[in-house]
Amino acid sequence: MPSLRDIRTPALVLERGILTRNIAVMAARMQPHGVALRPHLKTAKCAQVAKLATAGQFGGITVSTLAEAAYFAGHGFRDITYAVGIVPAKLGAVAELQRDGTIVRLLTDDVTVAEALAVRATALGTTFHVCVEIDTGGQRGGGAPESDALLGIARRVHESPALCLDGVLTHAGQSYATPGAEAARAVAATERAGVVRAAERLRAAGLPCPVVSAGSTPTAVHATSLAGVTEMRPGNFMFFDLTQVGLGSCTVNDVAVSVLASVIGHTSDGNRALVDAGSLALSADTSANAHLPGVGFGIVGDLWGRPLDGAAAFPLASPRTAPPAASPAPGYLAARIARVHQEHGFIESMTPLPLDALPVGTRVRILPNHACITAAMYDAYHVVDGSDEIVALWPRARGW
Amino acid sequence: MPSLRDIRTPALVLERGILTRNIAVMAARMQPHGVALRPHLKTAKCAQVAKLATAGQFGGITVSTLAEAAYFAGHGFRDITYAVGIVPAKLGAVAELQRDGTIVRLLTDDVTVAEALAVRATALGTTFHVCVEIDTGGQRGGGAPESDALLGIARRVHESPALCLDGVLTHAGQSYATPGAEAARAVAATERAGVVRAAERLRAAGLPCPVVSAGSTPTAVHATSLAGVTEMRPGNFMFFDLTQVGLGSCTVNDVAVSVLASVIGHTSDGNRALVDAGSLALSADTSANAHLPGVGFGIVGDLWGRPLDGAAAFPLASPRTAPPAASPAPGYLAARIARVHQEHGFIESMTPLPLDALPVGTRVRILPNHACITAAMYDAYHVVDGSDEIVALWPRARGW
Repeated sequence: MPSLRDIRTPALVLERGILTRNIAVMAARMQPHGVALRPHLKTAKCAQVAKLATAGQFGGITVSTLAEAAYFAGHGFRDITYAVGIVPAKLGAVAELQRDGTIVRLLTDDVTVAEALAVRATALGTTFHVCVEIDTGGQRGGGAPESDALLGIARRVHESPALCLDGVLTHAGQSYATPGAEAARAVAATERAGVVRAAERLRAAGLPCPVVSAGSTPTAVHATSLAGVTEMRPGNFMFFDLTQVGLGSCTVNDVAVSVLASVIGHTSDGNRALVDAGSLALSADTSANAHLPGVGFGIVGDLWGRPLDGAAAFPLASPRTAPPAASPAPGYLAARIARVHQEHGFIESMTPLPLDALPVGTRVRILPNHACITAAMYDAYHVVDGSDEIVALWPRARGW
Repeated sequence: MPSLRDIRTPALVLERGILTRNIAVMAARMQPHGVALRPHLKTAKCAQVAKLATAGQFGGITVSTLAEAAYFAGHGFRDITYAVGIVPAKLGAVAELQRDGTIVRLLTDDVTVAEALAVRATALGTTFHVCVEIDTGGQRGGGAPESDALLGIARRVHESPALCLDGVLTHAGQSYATPGAEAARAVAATERAGVVRAAERLRAAGLPCPVVSAGSTPTAVHATSLAGVTEMRPGNFMFFDLTQVGLGSCTVNDVAVSVLASVIGHTSDGNRALVDAGSLALSADTSANAHLPGVGFGIVGDLWGRPLDGAAAFPLASPRTAPPAASPAPGYLAARIARVHQEHGFIESMTPLPLDALPVGTRVRILPNHACITAAMYDAYHVVDGSDEIVALWPRARGW
């Protein structure tokens, strides 16, 4: 069997045991709420992961690009929500994807787009399923639940014989602004209240609204009530990352993806080790630093993903067979990627790094800031399961 | 002919006229110095661009990954410098690339790696060409020009019959820290002095040093003397970007790459337009803000790349046939991508944006912060030449 000791670095590593545990935990969270899980595959972009994430669920998924929609349709997924506002120029591609019975559900918050959807659906000989996008505080896409425009858009969709009004959809992106369970619970309550209110307004106006869709990873993890919501669309939860650690959605031990890198040198001042993973291999995303100041571009672990802190053994010891019981102490910030160039990363630490234990060629695993963006830099996952042995290679979709 | 009006967004656009002008200007800069241009292809990763950048030059190129080395070797480039410190685990792949006579020149600053290079070259039946990496202030890879280690590494390489000591190489990465021509000239002088001093020490010790390699885009643009340097390795200059605008290496009119995006909505507060280019389409790189504060994730232009400032016509007018004579006034910051999510970008402006002129479906072109990182998100360039007509599709290499 190939091992993480042998493959070319940098490479993307996925811990199957952590992945399946994260998926099981989220499924168990949704179950008592009685809401469907429509996992967002923008993070994983991988059919094997999608099959695990939809096992025991109703089978619907969420995507962020038409390239993902095409990829997952090609892998047998037939109920797909494309959760980015649609523009008319993309409708020919959507109609093409729907030719075999796949549904690619669309999103709009614009009445002129609703008009164009009706015209184009007829011209293309297809039916477009549409959710009206609702803003519940994220101030990205969507109109307010109380907006005048909401009913006009919904009615325009409903009145067209070539369109199907499926309901309302929201993403409370402000769940990423404030860390902690209490803040996430409050955002989840706002998200639920807003999207349910929009649904009630549609129904009061005599319009159908079977779908009431919400969700981000922080709100799905922390929601106390999802009454009136029919489906949740978290995505990052499968992998988690340092941003989610900072938000309080998970611990470091729940992070399923990492970047395998090699030490390629030491800086001439003797204080830092260089690795062959820079802003392309890790992404230039620094979002985790908002809630974990100083985390830089990622936490550095050993070949088995154990953070290189004062507690970790030097030289590197036996493989981890099960995740540690508890999250590492704040000392886990001891070794981090402090700076990146395109293909260089700089390992720095708050305490002097034992560089003698990190000679050129040493392999490390870097836990990413933002798994969605880091994973997007790669064509495949090297799948491991608690050791350095590679048990599978899972391809990823990419592009737009 | 296909047009930028028709293709799926987001997409990467390359202005051929600006590209060829940037290449000609750099070639003219190098010519009076009498130094060879070994362009760094880490930015372009494209054979068509490499052919333009090496036309009239000696044909050598620089790469940042072994995947680039394999790609360019496959396109007939035979003299390649891999300008990232080598680790022994990658030598099998290097030997494979050298089987047909291609040279993939390697870099080290570590005597144990020099030992491993000798052992592995013999075992693999190949010759490795080696430059010793010198730190001239960038504090990335390399030892100091005066370091004790330098001669030991060089001697170890020279003494092995399976290795060829080609010389010394440096990259003064600190050229990105301070803006302005004067600062860049000072860094260029430091870079030159350091790498030439290292070469002199090798020669004084009876060691060969035919290659004295230096260069970054800012130092190549601004160097006043390159005496003793044999080759320069700038890369970004082909495309330029907002980071280079901020540093003073170029103007906005010299930026050859941009991201074509579609307006997909407006935020509910009516202040911002949303586009379908977020942190994957633009990259999460914010480096340009160090010297152009407030530039966010890129400057927004119209379909022809003209910045949407007070001076630009609304609604969008006729195509640009030649670059404007002068750089836009500070008002070019009027429209920028202020924030990104994975597939969403937010156009904001310092003055109220005429959102009526940016209805859903409007196509814009975004000048990137850091062309190397933004371009890496795409598989190909849509090549245009002063209009919206697409004249070619040029593929890119990717991965590691």
